[in-house]
Amino acid sequence: MTGRVIELKNKPSVIASASSVGKTESEGPLKDEFDVVFPDDGIGQTSWENAESELMFISVSKCLEKSGLSEKDIGIIFAGDLINQCTSSTYAIRGFNTPFGGLFGACSTMAYSLALSALMVDGGYSDYALAATSSHFCSAEKQFRYPLEYGSQRAPASQRTVTGSGAFIIGKSRRPDIIIPRVQFGIITDAGINDTSNMGAAMAPAAAEAIASFLDSTGTKPTDYDLILTGDLGKVGSDLLKDYLYSRKSIDISEVHNDCGLMVYDISSQDVDSGGSGCGCSAVVTASYIMRLMRERELSKVLFAGTGALMSPLISLQGETIPAIAHIVEFNTVR
Amino acid sequence: MTGRVIELKNKPSVIASASSVGKTESEGPLKDEFDVVFPDDGIGQTSWENAESELMFISVSKCLEKSGLSEKDIGIIFAGDLINQCTSSTYAIRGFNTPFGGLFGACSTMAYSLALSALMVDGGYSDYALAATSSHFCSAEKQFRYPLEYGSQRAPASQRTVTGSGAFIIGKSRRPDIIIPRVQFGIITDAGINDTSNMGAAMAPAAAEAIASFLDSTGTKPTDYDLILTGDLGKVGSDLLKDYLYSRKSIDISEVHNDCGLMVYDISSQDVDSGGSGCGCSAVVTASYIMRLMRERELSKVLFAGTGALMSPLISLQGETIPAIAHIVEFNTVR
Repeated sequence: MTGRVIELKNKPSVIASASSVGKTESEGPLKDEFDVVFPDDGIGQTSWENAESELMFISVSKCLEKSGLSEKDIGIIFAGDLINQCTSSTYAIRGFNTPFGGLFGACSTMAYSLALSALMVDGGYSDYALAATSSHFCSAEKQFRYPLEYGSQRAPASQRTVTGSGAFIIGKSRRPDIIIPRVQFGIITDAGINDTSNMGAAMAPAAAEAIASFLDSTGTKPTDYDLILTGDLGKVGSDLLKDYLYSRKSIDISEVHNDCGLMVYDISSQDVDSGGSGCGCSAVVTASYIMRLMRERELSKVLFAGTGALMSPLISLQGETIPAIAHIVEFNTVR
Repeated sequence: MTGRVIELKNKPSVIASASSVGKTESEGPLKDEFDVVFPDDGIGQTSWENAESELMFISVSKCLEKSGLSEKDIGIIFAGDLINQCTSSTYAIRGFNTPFGGLFGACSTMAYSLALSALMVDGGYSDYALAATSSHFCSAEKQFRYPLEYGSQRAPASQRTVTGSGAFIIGKSRRPDIIIPRVQFGIITDAGINDTSNMGAAMAPAAAEAIASFLDSTGTKPTDYDLILTGDLGKVGSDLLKDYLYSRKSIDISEVHNDCGLMVYDISSQDVDSGGSGCGCSAVVTASYIMRLMRERELSKVLFAGTGALMSPLISLQGETIPAIAHIVEFNTVR
């Protein structure tokens, strides 16, 4: 089960990135990294779905503003979220006069939309492409588990869906700073997990297979990267990923691995169980903190493996297991 | 509100296409066109969702078989459907050892996945890409309206979701026969419709704007095409499309227009109200009948505008209107 590395020869570049988050994220370790922070998760809207949509609208608007580009300069916006029928994305992007492609990749959607955006630019199909994702703790709990008002208990292996949205503009640049040289689309991996409170376990094998395949195809080793960043396996999934790679593939990523779900919250002091998750998790971490570290050259080579549990609450109740996927985007700084 | 036409210079070609359908479709005017026909809509499965997934698995398998290619030859499968979290696609494509990209474009997904597949091939990112979509009358009614067991009445403007799946393999060919020379991704258009039983009215303005923009950008007129094919507006939406284009844009497409929703069923004798719809509708019509007519040179230039109502039942109940989109794929035969 191997993926296929796609080399992008024309240096598609990160032109700008932006993020917006809710309250719990604004109290975490990355609180000073985000562009827009809301003091409560209602985001001034009348429903959780509209709140999530508003977060994406704000991230996309902010990203356009930072880039100095207008919505008409963007060839396509690839966007996705966790809500049925890509509701948050559709209603957010309805506000822009820009072609739109809706995506579903669960928590892998940031990497997936970045990969497609990079291809659009690399292939010369548009000068600029925008990738955006969002998630919201309350809309996700309501849809995938129980409405918050039920006050149900959460399992220790569960992850807290990040309330936030991240956006990137990828384009051709005369002075490229951060480029995407390679991407790899994931193959669905089903490890037979049916516990919908343990997404980390469902996603870890997909992440492991994708990373092993990418390293093998490119002839690189973990320490060739400053950071191998998964998004978002949480504590349980991250431990499983490292074990799986070491025991089955003899690959040790422990020195260079981190996970967006472990970075966005302080799992020892915030009540987030195994860490963060959701389309917005890796989006807000990469669009803010990771891009800053790369711009400042604290990081130069980052392998970003966006992981998604392609789970349907309905079909899970019918007894099905959880398929998972991992899409990979490599970020390099240009000297 | 204009789209952006993307020219594909490397002649991405239709290598193969395949379709599978349920009972009502097998009783319609195109009954002899489909590859696989089921005598009942259960498709030998224990749930409607699994039935729909099985239809996609069969279409993809049949398409691979007709092409003589294996799953490992395919660089990526782009697939989507109407079911929450792209359930049908995920569970169908889990069966293939091929990279997967999940899409959401409602009924526009066949055109959308074809456009992305054509770009993957044209850009040299994969030798072959596969596009597949599915829908199922029973899974769609249950999710978007009422479970069939309720016996609710259907409105005259409503469309019947097609039970079926279509798949295309796009690739480079030494002897191209049917090529995709141009595509255009759609911009979300919201006409303010909130009647979820009248998708045709919600989608017609998006289709009209996309077609007008494509004709304008390419300097072509309707009669330059043998067929301008929408999928799927049904009777109500098709009439609105023609009126809208004629009255607002002075474009008369009446001589060359047809709609997949009007072709898949006989709306005068089958109990289908305004016609067919669903991701599977334009998929099974284009993958079977349209491709045959092109191979036999009864059609040479086809403009396929896949239309989608990007509607969320939840947010519609909260009072929102229905955003719509139309993605365009041009098919040409090569002399």
